[in-house]
Amino acid sequence: MGEVEVCNKQVILKNYVSGFPKESDMEVKTTSLKLKLSEGDSSVAILVKNLYLSCDPYMRSRMSKLEGQYVDSFTPGSVSHVLYIRMYPIVGYGVAEVLDSSHPNFKKGDLVWGITTWEDYSIITATEVLFKIQHTDVPLSYYTGILGMPGMTAYVGFFEVCSPKKGERVFVSAASGAVGQLVGQFAKLFGCYVVGSAGSKEKVDLLKNKFGFDEAFNYKEEADLNVALKRYFPDGIDIYFENVGGKMLDAVLLNMSLNGRIAACGMISQYNLEQQEGVQNLFCIVRKGIRMEGFLVFHHYHLYPKFLEMIIPQIKEGKITYVEDIAEGLENAPSSLIGLFSGLNIGKQVVSVTRG
Amino acid sequence: MGEVEVCNKQVILKNYVSGFPKESDMEVKTTSLKLKLSEGDSSVAILVKNLYLSCDPYMRSRMSKLEGQYVDSFTPGSVSHVLYIRMYPIVGYGVAEVLDSSHPNFKKGDLVWGITTWEDYSIITATEVLFKIQHTDVPLSYYTGILGMPGMTAYVGFFEVCSPKKGERVFVSAASGAVGQLVGQFAKLFGCYVVGSAGSKEKVDLLKNKFGFDEAFNYKEEADLNVALKRYFPDGIDIYFENVGGKMLDAVLLNMSLNGRIAACGMISQYNLEQQEGVQNLFCIVRKGIRMEGFLVFHHYHLYPKFLEMIIPQIKEGKITYVEDIAEGLENAPSSLIGLFSGLNIGKQVVSVTRG
Repeated sequence: MGEVEVCNKQVILKNYVSGFPKESDMEVKTTSLKLKLSEGDSSVAILVKNLYLSCDPYMRSRMSKLEGQYVDSFTPGSVSHVLYIRMYPIVGYGVAEVLDSSHPNFKKGDLVWGITTWEDYSIITATEVLFKIQHTDVPLSYYTGILGMPGMTAYVGFFEVCSPKKGERVFVSAASGAVGQLVGQFAKLFGCYVVGSAGSKEKVDLLKNKFGFDEAFNYKEEADLNVALKRYFPDGIDIYFENVGGKMLDAVLLNMSLNGRIAACGMISQYNLEQQEGVQNLFCIVRKGIRMEGFLVFHHYHLYPKFLEMIIPQIKEGKITYVEDIAEGLENAPSSLIGLFSGLNIGKQVVSVTRG
Repeated sequence: MGEVEVCNKQVILKNYVSGFPKESDMEVKTTSLKLKLSEGDSSVAILVKNLYLSCDPYMRSRMSKLEGQYVDSFTPGSVSHVLYIRMYPIVGYGVAEVLDSSHPNFKKGDLVWGITTWEDYSIITATEVLFKIQHTDVPLSYYTGILGMPGMTAYVGFFEVCSPKKGERVFVSAASGAVGQLVGQFAKLFGCYVVGSAGSKEKVDLLKNKFGFDEAFNYKEEADLNVALKRYFPDGIDIYFENVGGKMLDAVLLNMSLNGRIAACGMISQYNLEQQEGVQNLFCIVRKGIRMEGFLVFHHYHLYPKFLEMIIPQIKEGKITYVEDIAEGLENAPSSLIGLFSGLNIGKQVVSVTRG
C-alpha cells in the first residue's frame, strides 16, 4: 500500500450533548490519510483498518461535558488550538486489522480488539487496552461483545462481584443486551434461578427461548415493578445484576434478600435525564445487609486469558449463545449508538465498518 | 428475695408510629412481678434487674408496622389474644444483673449485656444475644455503647466492611454519636485522615478536641454539602461511614474516590419521613467502582472476644475515649429515645434505670 492516500470517513461528535442524544449531534466527515506511519515520528503507534465498532451504553457519558469520570469526555467538533485544527472522532471499542506498526508487540496482519476510534482507519497510540486476537474460528464481531469488553463485564460482574452460590435467585435487567444475555446464561450454567427484564415481547421471547432464562417479563407492561418482582421472586432476590437504575432499582431494593448482592454495571434509564430519578429505598441496603458494588472492567483485564479459556469451548460446544444486531457502514454508526437508549437493538449493537 | 412481689415499671409503645415519634406514643405503666422464676415453668429463662438501657436509632424502625425487616416491629399496647391480655414493653439492648436463672450459662449475680426489655425487671427467654460481662473495672454503662452493640458496629463496619488502608481519607457522618465517635477514633489510630460532621458547635468541638478528628463541620451551617466536602476532601473520600442518608449521601457520592467504600450503617435523617428522600447520584457507584455495603452487626458477634481484646487496653490506657449522655430513670426513657432523632443527645444516649 505504501504511500497511498485513501479516503477516511470519521464519525465526529459535533457538540456536547445534554438530554437525549440525536443523530444530528454527530456527523460523518470524509478526510484523507496515508496508509503508512510517518517514519520520522518517534512515537510508538499502530495504524489499523477498523472492521467492527462497538456501540456501548457507557459511551453516553462521554458525550457530555463531565469531570471526575472514569473515562474522559469525547472531544467534540473541530477544536481550534493555536497552531492547528484537528478533528476528533468518537473513541470506543472495536475490532481492527493492523496495517502498519512501530509497536514491538503488534505487526502488520495482526487482528486486534480494544480501544480504537470511529473511522475507517485509526492511528492508535494509546495501546493499553488493545488485545491481539488469537482465536479466529469464531465471528470476529464477537470481540466487540461476548469475547470483548461486554463479555468481561458479565464475567467479572457475575463471578467476582456477585459471589454467586448454586441455587441462588438472580435478577438481570436489560437482560437481552450485550452484557445481560451473558450474565443470564452464566448464572444458569452455574445453577441459579434466573429472571430477566427487557422492553419488548420479542426480547422477552429471546430471553426465555434462546438464552434459557427461567422467566422473563416486559417491564413496559408492568404497572408496578414491585408487584412484578414479587411474582417471580416470592422468596426474594439474592443477586441483582443492575443495568438500568432508577425505578427498577427502587423496586429491586424492596425485594432483595438478606445479604443480597447488587453488581452495579450500568444505569441506562438515567443517562439521558437532565435530572436523575431519586432512589428512595436505599435504607434496604442497611437493614438487609446488602452489598451494592460498582466495578471498572478495565481493572480486571488481567483475568481475560482465564475468561477466554472458559468461554471459547462453551461457544464452540453451543452451551452459550450470543445475539448481535449488526448495522452496516459507518454512516449508520450514529443512529446505532442512539438506538441503544430507546432499546431499538436486539442483542449486542455492532457496526460493521466495511459493508457487505 | 424469694416470692417477694415488687413494682415493675414498664415502657410501652402505645401504637405504631408514622412520621416523627412523640413522647406520648409511649407510656410508662407500673405492674407487679414476683422476683423469682416460676418453678413449674419448663422453659429456660433468666430474671434480670435492668441497670442501663440503650437508646439506639435502629429502634425507630421497630416502632412502625413493617415487614421483612431484620428486626420485627415492637408489639404495641395491650394486645388482646383469645385467652389473655399482656403488655409488651419495648425491646432493646441493655445491661442487667441476673436475679434468678434456669439457664445453665447464667446464674444469680452475673452481669450481662444484650437484648432485654424496657422495664425494671425482665424475664428473658430469648438469650441468643446475651453476653456475660467479664470486665467490670470499666463503667457498666459502656456495655450499651463502646463495649456493646455500637462498639461492635463501629469495629465491624470500619475494619471488616471499609477495608481501610493507612493514609486513606475517611468521612464519618453523625460523627459524635454512639458509633461515629468510635469509627473516627479507630480510623485515626489506624493512620487515616478523618473528618466528621455533626449538628451543633458543641459536637463539632467534641470531634476536634476530644476525639481527635482532623477536621469537623456542622452540616446545619453548610448551604451546600458538596462544597463543604470538597473543602475537606479536595482529593476525594476513600471511605464513608454512613449514618445519615439522604442529602448527605448524595453529596458524598459526588466526592467519592475511585474504588471508594461506603459502610452503610444507618440513615437517621430518613427514619421519620413518610416519604424517603430520593438519592440521585447513584450512578457514581457505577462509574467510580464504589462498594456500598450494609451489614448486620449480629452476624458478626463471633468477633466480640477479639474486639474486647483490642478495646479494653485502649480504654484503660486512655487511647480511646467515650462520651455518654445518661438520662436517669425509666420515666425519662421515652424522651431520651425520641431525642436521638433531633440530635439532642451528646454522645451515646443511655438510660440509667436505677436513679442516682
